Amino acid sequence: MVGQSGGPTSAINATLAGVIDGAIESGEYEHVYGAVNGIEGLLSKRIVELEKTFNSDEMIKSLVRTPAMYLGSCRYKLPSLDVSSEQYERVFNIFEEYSITDFFYIGGNDSMDTAMKLSAYARKIGYDIHIIGVPKTIDNDLFGTDHTPGFGSAAKFAATSMREIVYDSMIYNKKSVTIVEIMGRNAGWLTAATALARMDGLRAPHLVYLPEVPFDKDKFIDSINELFKTQRNIIVAVSEGVKDTNGNYLDHENLNEDEFGNVLHSGTGKVLEQLVLCKIGCKVRSVELNVLQRCAMHIASKTDLDESFNVGKAAVNAALAGNSDVMMCLKRVRGGDVYKCAVEYENIESVANFEKTVPLEWISESGDDIKQPLYDYIKPLIQGEVTVSYDDGLPSYLDVSHLL
Amino acid sequence: MVGQSGGPTSAINATLAGVIDGAIESGEYEHVYGAVNGIEGLLSKRIVELEKTFNSDEMIKSLVRTPAMYLGSCRYKLPSLDVSSEQYERVFNIFEEYSITDFFYIGGNDSMDTAMKLSAYARKIGYDIHIIGVPKTIDNDLFGTDHTPGFGSAAKFAATSMREIVYDSMIYNKKSVTIVEIMGRNAGWLTAATALARMDGLRAPHLVYLPEVPFDKDKFIDSINELFKTQRNIIVAVSEGVKDTNGNYLDHENLNEDEFGNVLHSGTGKVLEQLVLCKIGCKVRSVELNVLQRCAMHIASKTDLDESFNVGKAAVNAALAGNSDVMMCLKRVRGGDVYKCAVEYENIESVANFEKTVPLEWISESGDDIKQPLYDYIKPLIQGEVTVSYDDGLPSYLDVSHLL
Repeated sequence: MVGQSGGPTSAINATLAGVIDGAIESGEYEHVYGAVNGIEGLLSKRIVELEKTFNSDEMIKSLVRTPAMYLGSCRYKLPSLDVSSEQYERVFNIFEEYSITDFFYIGGNDSMDTAMKLSAYARKIGYDIHIIGVPKTIDNDLFGTDHTPGFGSAAKFAATSMREIVYDSMIYNKKSVTIVEIMGRNAGWLTAATALARMDGLRAPHLVYLPEVPFDKDKFIDSINELFKTQRNIIVAVSEGVKDTNGNYLDHENLNEDEFGNVLHSGTGKVLEQLVLCKIGCKVRSVELNVLQRCAMHIASKTDLDESFNVGKAAVNAALAGNSDVMMCLKRVRGGDVYKCAVEYENIESVANFEKTVPLEWISESGDDIKQPLYDYIKPLIQGEVTVSYDDGLPSYLDVSHLL
Repeated sequence: MVGQSGGPTSAINATLAGVIDGAIESGEYEHVYGAVNGIEGLLSKRIVELEKTFNSDEMIKSLVRTPAMYLGSCRYKLPSLDVSSEQYERVFNIFEEYSITDFFYIGGNDSMDTAMKLSAYARKIGYDIHIIGVPKTIDNDLFGTDHTPGFGSAAKFAATSMREIVYDSMIYNKKSVTIVEIMGRNAGWLTAATALARMDGLRAPHLVYLPEVPFDKDKFIDSINELFKTQRNIIVAVSEGVKDTNGNYLDHENLNEDEFGNVLHSGTGKVLEQLVLCKIGCKVRSVELNVLQRCAMHIASKTDLDESFNVGKAAVNAALAGNSDVMMCLKRVRGGDVYKCAVEYENIESVANFEKTVPLEWISESGDDIKQPLYDYIKPLIQGEVTVSYDDGLPSYLDVSHLL
């Protein structure tokens, strides 16, 4: 059985495709079940038989190239086992009913927490099952893996969009500031990726602000004024999650929380837009890349989709080799000129619930740019283009009306 | 001489490429000059020699596939000739100095106004020059042409993004409203294009609001509540320019104006987001497609780029045939199963300064959807994909550092 959880990425269906393909290819399984809407749907027995739908290379390939989550998702937190065991019992009764031997949970930090809790319960009741966490997130904030499946495609979209926005912003012979707000709660990986949009002779974005460094509003205005001495059109990349020097989110007057207590941002770019308007008074615009960062399949990274598929397949092999309580991970092969990543796994307890942020030594001392090692880290992950199918002028994706 | 003006589109450089290619191919010109930053730059003699840079098919092709405006733009309004003739004299002195015989001005409504004023002045002083307006705008709001170069690419981006946002919005088993705000001051063509994202079995966007119809907030909330009886995730497409039943923009408390007195919007989606939150209280998100609508070359329409190039070439032929005071236009060939458009021209005075909005008979009686003829009108314009070159994982566009 396989499920998806957390926020979407352009690559999470590639991982699902890898799990299905690996499972069918192994010949070791009678059925490959999908839990619709993750653990939440599993509790209501919303289960589909995947081996029937994905019985051809063509269908597997279509799944790889369909954005968001074919099985749907949830943001559902299992209660601590000390508080209540009722839901655990229900999950394992369903596992038993369907003769589930292996459970693959594709998701981010919160999903790894769920996988870990299920593993602990299985050990407690002596239920023989292999539980494998399979990482994904555009945020790239998981420990134990060189990077997360899904990050490369989001990075490619963000850097491509940034380059196009730079072209758009340069056309008027008039001072302007364009602020591009990028996703990333506490980790600035995706914001950093927009720096790859720079070209010879065109060093935009000029300022790049990650949440790892406190954001100083006065210094920001000073930097813009300084840049205006040599530039006409200034481009700023800013993470939604930057905090001011008092530790408050810039948009702290306008925040909501999701069910995991994660803070939902809106408006960091707008706050800075108003600040520039008040303090400098020039033309200013803010652009929020928004959800397209996690679903713009039409500009996905081939490297990312290939790796995501391989991680899914390797997860099946890891389960068949008798592993459990592990999270699959990518290990970059050091040395050599060519980028290479191997798929391995780590004990899930050692990686779940920790956030991997950008190392401070990869951020410039001025706090408004990234350093070369961070470029070099991201660059291989956005390589290669994906040919999606087009039908009547629009990308043709798999029907997901079973989620309705 | 050729210049670009107004807002960017993904296709305006294709038209510029068409003009350059047509001019060189004709063998009738000694030089092909470009006015940098349109009429405003021309007044300061910011002139480049284009035939030197674009001396190969490869360079012409690269220009076609570079977004925004290679020559830069302006939003500059020539004073009425009654008020002052100083700037007109300056322009024509420069025309004389450079022996300009033909002037091509690529732009939208405001640019056609400029072309018309220059034509009138030329006639007045008896200066022999052919002045040709060449249309472009993502808004598709120009009279005299079946559609505008640039609209098809913007429509393809908007519909593609809409489809991907629909996939993104469906993953949670939880009621939600997603509001997508699309550009378009007074004309809803681009917002209408997002309806093409619908698929068999997936009728999202569910509600489509164009500025041609007054927006009733109470009816909007009623429609969402009604849809929630049969749908879980509701997608709304709304034009930035919708007005309430009192004739006020929804975001009328937060408006700016540009130099032409055009109203600059921000926040129609945010206003509706707050409204849904207050009145319904479900999960709600607004997404502003923002400037990517006019610069996302990586998902441009091949039909649009081809037509835009052809319009530029035809403009040169029109000038060489002795025409002046005309705007180039596309005429859809009626009858037959296959879409076909011819390039013709119209007297510029008969088309400039009029806005072409969506005919009310192409909008549903309920005011929240489009009718079949509008689908049929837009569909051919988004056909065909463009292969941009990629370098190190990102689209490779022509160097525009001359605009710095």
